[in-house]
Amino acid sequence: MIPTLSIITAAHDRIRPYIHHTPTLTCQTLNRVSGADLYFKCENFQKIGAFKARGGVNAVLSLTPEELKNGVTTHSSGNHAQAIAYAAGLVGTKAYIVMPRTAPQVKKDAVRGYGAEVIECEPTLEARESTVERVIAEHGATMIHPFNDYRVIAGQATATKELIEDHGPFDVIMAPVGGGGLLSGTALAAHYLAPKTEIIAGEPEGAADAVLSFKTGNIEKAPYIDTIADGLLTNLGDKTLEIIRLHVRDILLVSDPEIIAAMRLIWERMKIIIEPSCAVPFAALLRNKERFEGKKVGIILTGGNVDLGKLPFGSN
Amino acid sequence: MIPTLSIITAAHDRIRPYIHHTPTLTCQTLNRVSGADLYFKCENFQKIGAFKARGGVNAVLSLTPEELKNGVTTHSSGNHAQAIAYAAGLVGTKAYIVMPRTAPQVKKDAVRGYGAEVIECEPTLEARESTVERVIAEHGATMIHPFNDYRVIAGQATATKELIEDHGPFDVIMAPVGGGGLLSGTALAAHYLAPKTEIIAGEPEGAADAVLSFKTGNIEKAPYIDTIADGLLTNLGDKTLEIIRLHVRDILLVSDPEIIAAMRLIWERMKIIIEPSCAVPFAALLRNKERFEGKKVGIILTGGNVDLGKLPFGSN
Repeated sequence: MIPTLSIITAAHDRIRPYIHHTPTLTCQTLNRVSGADLYFKCENFQKIGAFKARGGVNAVLSLTPEELKNGVTTHSSGNHAQAIAYAAGLVGTKAYIVMPRTAPQVKKDAVRGYGAEVIECEPTLEARESTVERVIAEHGATMIHPFNDYRVIAGQATATKELIEDHGPFDVIMAPVGGGGLLSGTALAAHYLAPKTEIIAGEPEGAADAVLSFKTGNIEKAPYIDTIADGLLTNLGDKTLEIIRLHVRDILLVSDPEIIAAMRLIWERMKIIIEPSCAVPFAALLRNKERFEGKKVGIILTGGNVDLGKLPFGSN
Repeated sequence: MIPTLSIITAAHDRIRPYIHHTPTLTCQTLNRVSGADLYFKCENFQKIGAFKARGGVNAVLSLTPEELKNGVTTHSSGNHAQAIAYAAGLVGTKAYIVMPRTAPQVKKDAVRGYGAEVIECEPTLEARESTVERVIAEHGATMIHPFNDYRVIAGQATATKELIEDHGPFDVIMAPVGGGGLLSGTALAAHYLAPKTEIIAGEPEGAADAVLSFKTGNIEKAPYIDTIADGLLTNLGDKTLEIIRLHVRDILLVSDPEIIAAMRLIWERMKIIIEPSCAVPFAALLRNKERFEGKKVGIILTGGNVDLGKLPFGSN
């Protein structure tokens, strides 16, 4: 069942001791550049460096002792891996994290740093899913899907719940869309707490599946995959698609140069580190300025886990 | 006269409408790495991206109408230039900023962006000083020294005043030392508001003048200049030296690799952008862990103005 307000509130109460109530930052220069009144919800300062801690912790803390007994598992090359590893550590159960062998060493090390076991596989969705199935068969571990799970969605919704409670209401709230866990949580929280808010997502042109699925109502694949926003490559799930179709107003596309420019503006002007995926909604706002002019806009900055040795800024 | 508590309090009241009350961040990972209980005062989020806004605004707002009439001037290749340009704009007077012609274009543009006139000169201290003298002779502008000025020192002191009022008392407060404006302000604020606090500075090995001046009581030159911490190259002034000798416990040296490692730790773990100069106190703490073990330590993060096209992290 689609999470109700009381489910989201219960999720927030459940995870509160283990996550940060992240700050909201404003920046006069970026207000001037954009023509809008911007409130950035800094999930890059969240535990594990991304909002995924919210959904991961809520999902793991919602499991029964029986479900927890043999550990938890998931496949992820990114922030969800760390979130489940972190959450498993909180409840003292084992985490088996399936990661593509091509994932950066620093990400594998981070997952191991939370006490999880990393199981490497070939870098294909098929290999990832079959490896997780093997882990479940061998160990009896409980799978936590990265986004198509109502407990995960309710957890991600708490970021927008905090944002609205701290600074609401808003004319618009923006989030990026990959699998849609954050976007559907964002839309639900706003629907319950500030129903006049327009929810608008940003998506890379080089992973433009959600914008298609949003139109057709079926889970579509992207025409092609080629983007620096490596957190947004996945397709929607049936649960996230349903919520997004109900409560999201629009999904706006942006190019990689627009993503990099938006990311650089935030780094230079706000002095905070955000991932490329995280710059997508702000890039969409800058590309469509007239639509947001004079509006009060909340933007979820989703994460700050970047490889400082591989930055896209070039040399001056 | 060395600023009293009431002078510092008056400075704070004067500048409050024009500066940010910056946040203090903590980070469990860095507490674990260091063995200390760390509070980072984030002046990288300050107006113009550095604490220099405090001293610059206080100095300019303290001028008489007569002193303001023909504008203000200073020489700086860095944050003080922007601070004076910003402050002059607040009071509607002209700012003549003398900058070495070799200063990065982005810094010249930032100063012009605040409405100031940039006057280029050769990149030597002599050329900078003689050019300022010419500006004073031609225009009658009032010179604002970057650090050896009690109004500037009182302004810089307000960062530590906020830190202690928000989270004090501390066992130790740390700041970097270049010309000593921030360090002497830090030491004064702590002396008045939390007199048991040890004030400990960090200085680069490649600009090790303050540590010598601290010992001898005379203004000494560095044995050699070679450091990435380009905000800390200047020698102390007589006013800053006197206060530092009275109220600072120690000045600790660090190497450039230690500065870069400390900077990278803060970027990666705290997701905030700080300048190399700004990482010097944390680098000094990491080099001398046993001295700070278990202590509650405030660290002034001085600024976040870096050239993203020229980062020192290399590629992985």
